[in-house]
Amino acid sequence: MSGKQHSTDQETRLIEEDHHSIKLWLRLLTCSSLIEKHLRGSLREEFNTTLPRFDFLAQLERSADGLTMGELSSRMMVSGGNATGLANQLVKEGLVERNSPPNNRRTFVIKLSPKGKKYFAKLATRHEEWMISLLGKLSDTDVRNLMRLLGKVKSEVV
Amino acid sequence: MSGKQHSTDQETRLIEEDHHSIKLWLRLLTCSSLIEKHLRGSLREEFNTTLPRFDFLAQLERSADGLTMGELSSRMMVSGGNATGLANQLVKEGLVERNSPPNNRRTFVIKLSPKGKKYFAKLATRHEEWMISLLGKLSDTDVRNLMRLLGKVKSEVV
Repeated sequence: MSGKQHSTDQETRLIEEDHHSIKLWLRLLTCSSLIEKHLRGSLREEFNTTLPRFDFLAQLERSADGLTMGELSSRMMVSGGNATGLANQLVKEGLVERNSPPNNRRTFVIKLSPKGKKYFAKLATRHEEWMISLLGKLSDTDVRNLMRLLGKVKSEVV
Repeated sequence: MSGKQHSTDQETRLIEEDHHSIKLWLRLLTCSSLIEKHLRGSLREEFNTTLPRFDFLAQLERSADGLTMGELSSRMMVSGGNATGLANQLVKEGLVERNSPPNNRRTFVIKLSPKGKKYFAKLATRHEEWMISLLGKLSDTDVRNLMRLLGKVKSEVV
């Protein structure tokens, strides 16, 4: 055991006889955790913001009609974010709007405000640039094969 | 927009012109989030426990000599777990032991207790079974190719 702290890499400590499904899962998790770590760092450094906030806004950006709180919670990709807490904060900052639809006064629909749209556009541009700098060196063939194979994984685990 | 709640699947809402690095990242994230969601559910249902607790114990299980709190924090794969809080709780339950090494009284080294080892062995067995049921239908060729390609991703993003 080294006294040095290593980056997230559980799989290098895997025991040889582990089943290949476990190895695959840990490699997947290692890849997504490493990218997530970069992303958290960049969001903090450049925008002083967090991944759950980015995720929350990204979901809204893809839904022009807005989303209910339930939809938002179930669509968020990262754990550790409390959707209600995030909503309250973002409403206060004027980045999102929260309204009850006329046909259902007991629910709330959340949308990006004009200010939120402008703000998110800046984040999205940098997000794309960060991802290209992380993954852009993979060949087109590798990306195509990965997309296809991960598509199979996705259809198995959905 | 459908009023129905869908499972985690941000990528199906992707805009066509997004760069393939973003598409790849979202597909990776979708796969690992879906598996993580299964795992969180199974851990809760069968063991009444959480993914950060499982992760914490899994890191210790791979390090017979124990880990410092710093090592533990940096090795944990999932976000949302507070390592100090988890350590306090697991010490209280008798699943881990916390001691200062003789050569450095200012730090703590955490190890699984004999009870913790037995407990974790049960979790690990089921974890492997869950992963085989999720991913075991992929062909050997697909798994081999995925491991190789994800290995490339890993070396790009480390």
